[in-house]
Amino acid sequence: MLFSRGMLLNYIYPLLSLIVTVVTIYLIKLFVESKQKERILDKFSTKVSDAVAQTLLKSKDVDLAGEEREITIFFSDIRNFTTISESFGDPKRLIAYLNRYMSPMSEIIIKNRGTIDKYIGDAIMAYWNAPLRVKRHADLALKTALDQLRWLEHLNRELEAEGLARIDIGIGIHTGLAVVGEMGSHKRSDYTIIGDSVNTASRIEGLCKEFNAKILISEDVKMQLKDEYIFERVGEISLKGKSSKVMIYKVLGEGNVKG
Amino acid sequence: MLFSRGMLLNYIYPLLSLIVTVVTIYLIKLFVESKQKERILDKFSTKVSDAVAQTLLKSKDVDLAGEEREITIFFSDIRNFTTISESFGDPKRLIAYLNRYMSPMSEIIIKNRGTIDKYIGDAIMAYWNAPLRVKRHADLALKTALDQLRWLEHLNRELEAEGLARIDIGIGIHTGLAVVGEMGSHKRSDYTIIGDSVNTASRIEGLCKEFNAKILISEDVKMQLKDEYIFERVGEISLKGKSSKVMIYKVLGEGNVKG
Repeated sequence: MLFSRGMLLNYIYPLLSLIVTVVTIYLIKLFVESKQKERILDKFSTKVSDAVAQTLLKSKDVDLAGEEREITIFFSDIRNFTTISESFGDPKRLIAYLNRYMSPMSEIIIKNRGTIDKYIGDAIMAYWNAPLRVKRHADLALKTALDQLRWLEHLNRELEAEGLARIDIGIGIHTGLAVVGEMGSHKRSDYTIIGDSVNTASRIEGLCKEFNAKILISEDVKMQLKDEYIFERVGEISLKGKSSKVMIYKVLGEGNVKG
Repeated sequence: MLFSRGMLLNYIYPLLSLIVTVVTIYLIKLFVESKQKERILDKFSTKVSDAVAQTLLKSKDVDLAGEEREITIFFSDIRNFTTISESFGDPKRLIAYLNRYMSPMSEIIIKNRGTIDKYIGDAIMAYWNAPLRVKRHADLALKTALDQLRWLEHLNRELEAEGLARIDIGIGIHTGLAVVGEMGSHKRSDYTIIGDSVNTASRIEGLCKEFNAKILISEDVKMQLKDEYIFERVGEISLKGKSSKVMIYKVLGEGNVKG
């Protein structure tokens, strides 16, 4: 009995320790891999769709150290948001109101394969063609703008029915070279874009009020468009600190108007 | 032999299954808890120090749904960054250069208990007194600005020794009410601040070039300061869309100059 028990333990303990070792190694491997994936997903999960984030995990085309690329840049903001926000006494209600707008607008960008760069107060900055390359990025950005305006009509009917202020926005789009990569401090870096073309897009958005436009695009965007839209030429603008001028167009909708 | 083997198995398998069950439950519990903590830490880990993030985990004072609070808001940006960036041919070198500046500047903000809101190109937006309340937030913001300028002298000596462009910055600080909370879309929300006082801080920073100043603060900041600094009154400015005027001061350093 004692002997046979000893025999059995000699088989069971090495076997048990083998199983524990294998399982532990497997769990550690799973953990490390899932941590690495989580880091990449974390970096992009708030910026792109789940599908794009998953593609990024497999892609070797993402250069976080920086590269120059042609990007279509999109800025939007809410007209008179300060006045609207002052009409809300309760900050919780103001944030809930703002998020009712931000949420669908963000989803429309993501759905059209755009990357949300950041929210700056009530403004949204987004771009196309990074981190993943997308074809026809100018069309996708303009399609996003038109989709947003359509959705906004729907939201405004809801808001007005509830006695809340309607939301009107201005959108500026520009296509140009920008440097994309991880910027910021070592521990607090963010994948983003920098360059003069970003400032130009922001400048164009800022002109919406002056030109009474909902969507303004630069000639550089217009030249890249493959689909048909209804444009109105609003004039050339000179950009701060630049000698060159940029022709700006108002976009009135999709389609083709002759004459 | 067979009988005794059977006896042993009767002890070992229930024991084994008990151990496996206990270990599994423990691992799942650990995983779920760490996931929840991770979510809160993720939201703030890039914005505040590890110590503040840990305090937030325990604190009940963080109202993500929105509240109005007195905040000291800080904006900085690099003078002529477009010109500097055009002098770099290689985007990787440009980003490495920019991050050499961003990294220490961010650490100085964090070290002084500030919250980094976002990077906007070469600009940094930060604030004090949210998510955690901090006493003397105006002093902390101004101390950060002065610390940054001191550190920048050191960095510029390094950069110039390497034949790279020196970095000069402008900083604008304003104290005022802002709404803090989670803004953005449901899936892509960000803890941030909105309000007119944010625009005012940004406006003040934009005046640095005009007034040839490195640090400009509003009267609202000056009134809150407890430590002594050397000021120079630069004049009243009227803010866009506001009837009231704001007195602006240049900050030249720490200390007290009589006469």
